[in-house]
Amino acid sequence: MNGAELLVKTAVKAGIDICFANAGTTEMPIVVALDSEPGIKPVLCLFEGVCTGAADGYGRMLDKPAMTLLHLGPGFADGISNLHNARRAKTPVLNIVGEHATWHRASDPPLAMDIERLAGSVSGWQRTNKAPEALSRDVAEAVAAARYGQVATLIVPNDHQWAEPAGVRVATPKFSFAPVDSGRIEQASRLLRSKSKAALMIGGRALRSRGLHAAARIRAATGCALLTDGFPPYVERGAGLPDVPRLPYFPEPAIKLLSQYKVIVLAGVKEPVAFFGYKGVASQLLPETGRKIRIDTGRQNVIAVLEALADALDAPQYAKISGKIGSKRARPAVPSGELTGEKACLTVAATQPEDAIVVDEGLTSSFSYYPLGAGLSPHTYLTLTGGSLGHGMPCATGAALACRDRHVINFEADGSAMYTLQALWTQARESLNVTTLICANRSYNILKVELKRVGIESVGPRASSLMELERPTIDWVSVAKGLGVPAMSVHTAEGLARELGKAIRESGPHLIEMVIG
Amino acid sequence: MNGAELLVKTAVKAGIDICFANAGTTEMPIVVALDSEPGIKPVLCLFEGVCTGAADGYGRMLDKPAMTLLHLGPGFADGISNLHNARRAKTPVLNIVGEHATWHRASDPPLAMDIERLAGSVSGWQRTNKAPEALSRDVAEAVAAARYGQVATLIVPNDHQWAEPAGVRVATPKFSFAPVDSGRIEQASRLLRSKSKAALMIGGRALRSRGLHAAARIRAATGCALLTDGFPPYVERGAGLPDVPRLPYFPEPAIKLLSQYKVIVLAGVKEPVAFFGYKGVASQLLPETGRKIRIDTGRQNVIAVLEALADALDAPQYAKISGKIGSKRARPAVPSGELTGEKACLTVAATQPEDAIVVDEGLTSSFSYYPLGAGLSPHTYLTLTGGSLGHGMPCATGAALACRDRHVINFEADGSAMYTLQALWTQARESLNVTTLICANRSYNILKVELKRVGIESVGPRASSLMELERPTIDWVSVAKGLGVPAMSVHTAEGLARELGKAIRESGPHLIEMVIG
Repeated sequence: MNGAELLVKTAVKAGIDICFANAGTTEMPIVVALDSEPGIKPVLCLFEGVCTGAADGYGRMLDKPAMTLLHLGPGFADGISNLHNARRAKTPVLNIVGEHATWHRASDPPLAMDIERLAGSVSGWQRTNKAPEALSRDVAEAVAAARYGQVATLIVPNDHQWAEPAGVRVATPKFSFAPVDSGRIEQASRLLRSKSKAALMIGGRALRSRGLHAAARIRAATGCALLTDGFPPYVERGAGLPDVPRLPYFPEPAIKLLSQYKVIVLAGVKEPVAFFGYKGVASQLLPETGRKIRIDTGRQNVIAVLEALADALDAPQYAKISGKIGSKRARPAVPSGELTGEKACLTVAATQPEDAIVVDEGLTSSFSYYPLGAGLSPHTYLTLTGGSLGHGMPCATGAALACRDRHVINFEADGSAMYTLQALWTQARESLNVTTLICANRSYNILKVELKRVGIESVGPRASSLMELERPTIDWVSVAKGLGVPAMSVHTAEGLARELGKAIRESGPHLIEMVIG
Repeated sequence: MNGAELLVKTAVKAGIDICFANAGTTEMPIVVALDSEPGIKPVLCLFEGVCTGAADGYGRMLDKPAMTLLHLGPGFADGISNLHNARRAKTPVLNIVGEHATWHRASDPPLAMDIERLAGSVSGWQRTNKAPEALSRDVAEAVAAARYGQVATLIVPNDHQWAEPAGVRVATPKFSFAPVDSGRIEQASRLLRSKSKAALMIGGRALRSRGLHAAARIRAATGCALLTDGFPPYVERGAGLPDVPRLPYFPEPAIKLLSQYKVIVLAGVKEPVAFFGYKGVASQLLPETGRKIRIDTGRQNVIAVLEALADALDAPQYAKISGKIGSKRARPAVPSGELTGEKACLTVAATQPEDAIVVDEGLTSSFSYYPLGAGLSPHTYLTLTGGSLGHGMPCATGAALACRDRHVINFEADGSAMYTLQALWTQARESLNVTTLICANRSYNILKVELKRVGIESVGPRASSLMELERPTIDWVSVAKGLGVPAMSVHTAEGLARELGKAIRESGPHLIEMVIG
């Protein structure tokens, strides 16, 4: 068994069952080894940003790491943007990056880069394998580190992949959450009982249904409001679950909303900050005067922490309160006429199937979708946590592979879509049930919104040329078909409802270009 | 005048006339400022790898830096791969990267990354602007640093862009090459006169015609062979110029070729090394026994260095020897029948117009093109210096903008093309005379070649799935049309000759999918 086979076997034993790969010469032993292990499915992505974004989507859905296989420094570099999003989402990801043979590296061949430096920009854990004998242990440690909600990156020299270490056993990850901090639970419970107006702000794993149930119990016991950050990585939504509003995108309304609370308890999320800095507006969104406490660390299971807090508050079980705190069923009707962002959101809400996964990189076009989700049938909602464009299509790809029996709907801004459109090809190859909704407003509209905020109502033609996606208009139907995905263009809400309904009924990927006025 | 306007004015005064941009909120002041300066042309690219690859192509053609404008850490990260290629090519590039407002950065907002760490992976010079008053000086120093053949990266906080520094003057770059090292010239001249079999290996600026003339003079005076590295950034080619063969890609033939020389003089290029490490084959390609000397440093003008060596050798002027040393005119005929890589190369050589710029990322399909170039009419040839895929289409875009009166032909492997296909849209928007020749062998063929080298003749279905671009077949005609570029697919050499001829006669971009058996 060579190092590469040992690596693959260790990954599989640690629960890794998928590998998003774009490998090169330095990773060939690992590519060959994938045939020795039926437990792991290799998925070819035609750009590394697709590999890493897909691993993020997969990890968010299943709360366990997928593996990426990346070629040297350039391959890793191409994957950084979406690893940044994964890092902000606290998604478990295992990156395996090939490196030149140890004896060749010093000659600084053309493809050589400082991979460790690059890896450090996004990895919570990283290592360069020092010997084939340590490879299995390194992989196991990387997986364990990833499972705390981190990007873990292991760099593996090519000669260590080929080497045949003697007498090495397949290691297993040592992973366990740190115990709940009872002191903090007690403090938080005192604060919440103090009769001051309070909010419980939750994020990360806390937005899975068990976490939502615990949060709802705390709400029932104390009357606190529930909130989440502006860009939650993964939220379970729908009738019967508590509605957890997101903080508004712009800092002024977020600050205003939060200013009413004298007590803020944070779980699974750090103190919220403004997305961008605006002169005269604070970076920190929480009121300076109130009392605030974070009840978990990144090493704890935030769901267990919330349940401990609910128990400390003698909160009723969720079954007893779901009728009161769970959202009521409410599905909008399909609107009519020319599409706008709002109408697109209403149409999707009216049409989406049970258990849908909604990946939202629609930016200005899909701002109004989230609130509609509270009353729909159960679904999962994923956002662009790190703000790095080109996340939606890869994430949808990974989510669809994680949950093959669910339908993925991807709101995708046309500007963002262009970043990682290679994902469509993988969706076609793997026959994934993803419907991509291109929000074709044909501009970087968010930039115009941001300019207006700073008082600039109009700009010159050169500045304008950098914000318009016209000249030429991208024909998404043609692009998608070229990459193997059937596609349609619609201009009206009725057209969208019809085509989305059809896409949901048919299996395999679809793309619908929504021309938005 | 705010900081952003000062930045733009300084860049223009320093000779920067183009800006490849994909800006975001943090760079908006610079975007707005572009309208205050007619001397700089903004070019929108829909992915940052296109911005940086285009800057590389532009810089290679004109031997001066283009500017990129990139959005925060994620924007820079997306541009790293092609900056790696630019670094290996020693192309002058000026990156301007926006950063959050200084007072906002510490709150670690979602888009925050360690930009300095990322910049360090590819930049020969980098700085984060510390005050608006220093902005003009920083830009001037960055441009000066870039002109030595480096990637220079200046990170500019958003508040420094908006600020209005008082009494600041527009700085100008202080740039001059270091003087020629006469000691080394003398040493090299002694070695070349020693009657040992010698080779002069040249790279970088030395491959421009003045450098080639100087090298030819040295050859005429000493009988030395001329060589260049495996992946030269920019070579002027054609009848009347000396033919400078490239080192073979694989180390064994390269080592064999070089082993015949007892003296090696290097100019504008470091000692050659193998692209990848293969067990039992040396990394270093030069013979250990011979004598070798590099006659320039990165701070010197290698053309002046070569001319000094030619003069030291009392070499005849080029006009007197061009008839003997310059390549003879020899243009192949268009072959016939089903396309292969070889036939595609012959057809392009038979059809390309005078003064063509040939950007070669054809990998296994275009291996046989370079030797044909010696006898053609004058043209320029650019290669994938750093091995990081996705270089060709952006590089062709930048080269076409640098030389609007020349026709660019881009050999583009289908696997590589998928990395940065967004470049096609910019080619359409700017009506660039680029013909992209997709080498559609529908596989990562180079990986199969590399596997055979290590004795693996066949692999399992999983490994195979990671090397095949089938299922689905990419329809490049549809993809290109979707991005605004007229496209055709051809299967025969005659078809290629016809379509390439048409594309050359018509203005604007074209794409020809060459289906290669």
